[in-house]
Amino acid sequence: MVVPQSGLPERVTIYEVGPRDGLQNEKTLVNTEVKAEFVRRLLAAGLPIVEATSFVHPRWIPQLADAADLMGLLDAAGRDCPVLVPNERGLDRALELGVKKIAIFGSATDTFAKRNLNCTLEEQFAMFEPAVKRAREAELDVRAYVSMCFGDPWEGAVPVQQVVYVGKRLLDMGANQLSLGDTIGVGTPGHVTHLIESFLEAGVDVAQLAMHFHDTYGQALSNTFAALLGGVSTFDASAGGIGGCPFAESATGNLATEDLVWMLHGLGIQTGVDLGQVVATSSWMAEHLGRPSPSALVRALTRTS
Amino acid sequence: MVVPQSGLPERVTIYEVGPRDGLQNEKTLVNTEVKAEFVRRLLAAGLPIVEATSFVHPRWIPQLADAADLMGLLDAAGRDCPVLVPNERGLDRALELGVKKIAIFGSATDTFAKRNLNCTLEEQFAMFEPAVKRAREAELDVRAYVSMCFGDPWEGAVPVQQVVYVGKRLLDMGANQLSLGDTIGVGTPGHVTHLIESFLEAGVDVAQLAMHFHDTYGQALSNTFAALLGGVSTFDASAGGIGGCPFAESATGNLATEDLVWMLHGLGIQTGVDLGQVVATSSWMAEHLGRPSPSALVRALTRTS
Repeated sequence: MVVPQSGLPERVTIYEVGPRDGLQNEKTLVNTEVKAEFVRRLLAAGLPIVEATSFVHPRWIPQLADAADLMGLLDAAGRDCPVLVPNERGLDRALELGVKKIAIFGSATDTFAKRNLNCTLEEQFAMFEPAVKRAREAELDVRAYVSMCFGDPWEGAVPVQQVVYVGKRLLDMGANQLSLGDTIGVGTPGHVTHLIESFLEAGVDVAQLAMHFHDTYGQALSNTFAALLGGVSTFDASAGGIGGCPFAESATGNLATEDLVWMLHGLGIQTGVDLGQVVATSSWMAEHLGRPSPSALVRALTRTS
Repeated sequence: MVVPQSGLPERVTIYEVGPRDGLQNEKTLVNTEVKAEFVRRLLAAGLPIVEATSFVHPRWIPQLADAADLMGLLDAAGRDCPVLVPNERGLDRALELGVKKIAIFGSATDTFAKRNLNCTLEEQFAMFEPAVKRAREAELDVRAYVSMCFGDPWEGAVPVQQVVYVGKRLLDMGANQLSLGDTIGVGTPGHVTHLIESFLEAGVDVAQLAMHFHDTYGQALSNTFAALLGGVSTFDASAGGIGGCPFAESATGNLATEDLVWMLHGLGIQTGVDLGQVVATSSWMAEHLGRPSPSALVRALTRTS
């Protein structure tokens, strides 16, 4: 039943991260043609943005070592998909293939910057700057992920003003959009509200903010609802909830696109997404991954079939 | 990190339904002494109300056929726990054992009334009335569950005014509290807000409302957050998320107490509950049930141990 709630956006953009953030955290290596078909099916299901892959060095993420081959298998719509680039070298590879949208992956904490980027919180800006500058000169859209915005496994709670500082630096550098990630899934709705308000107080337009929630502690959708009330209208999600939690079978990591779509459509918010097609795509991908989808909704809708 | 959100209750009462609603929907039969220990551990973890069992005929729910024996194993605090009674005969059995709080289980839809209670929507009131009247004369607290408040597997969407009608009839009969159940888990936050507002417009005090969400479609916590914003301060939950979904292994049914406590404590809302003790209790019960806890939080906190 569709029952709108006052004060929410009329339309939400779902930024699909399954092929990149999802598959890079799955143990099973997926064939390149299957990945291409995954991207095609997600686009056909009405998802407006599908992040296709990452041009990170294969040593770090062997799951996505076939990034260039994958892009070659996609048609024009597929080649318009954003890709993640870790640095200038990744940007060079992406530019050669004619990509039009890139994403960079920053950290809100010093410890995660050191562990994931091998640099300090401050040094990451110098690392990203030339890539962002060149991408913007080439008229590419640049999305900046900010990871560990709510909690960090080593540092614990992350100060909101530190997240705002990192986000502002990345916007000032030229990023068009921030994706604020609760990478370990520990955030709760009041924290979400406070973080969004803090960005607005710092002069950031809410249209530049996307939220990236993980369901590791079951909190992703309540946090999404808080962010909707705060005016955010772009949300990251992963078809079938794949990725994000490589440690435990069937445990949840990334917010599942289907669970998000169910809530949004129930609220009367338009997404352009065909829920049945996403469920079918996730069920198909679950077979390739050899494990059931972690999405509550996919399980509910497919358990009798 | 604790970050309050304005406009929410300072304190929430968690009504623990694991021993009754949880175990009655688990395939595994649990030993009576283990059930008694489950109730004791939940009370020791600070849960203020633990529904202990159901005095329904063993033919319908063999899992709880030992209701009287279970009550005999509990100490004074355990014997203060509410129990479900389906009718006058169940009330008789409960009164003999000295229980002080009962719950009845009504339906918001005609089809579910026929399937679960073997009577029409209207006939259920005549069935419950003598039991509720006698219970109130004996100074017992009476909670009335209203099931299928959001959707029904046979009827689809359930009109909000029909739910208000059923709830009002049960309150007028003498029930102290309504537990409004999303039995199949399909509701979304705008629907929750609208249902609560409709009860208030009908003259019901929000303090008489409890919400009972299922996580089958992943929506339970966002619906909880909407209900908190609507002023509700009593929520049903099941330790470890047991029960509520007997069809698929590891799929989610009842909202897990732990996932609820994490959100409430993150919002700075007091519950009196020791989260670690509930997680430990759910892990212990999961061994007896022979399946992993469906709670996201229990999995996240126990996967490395």
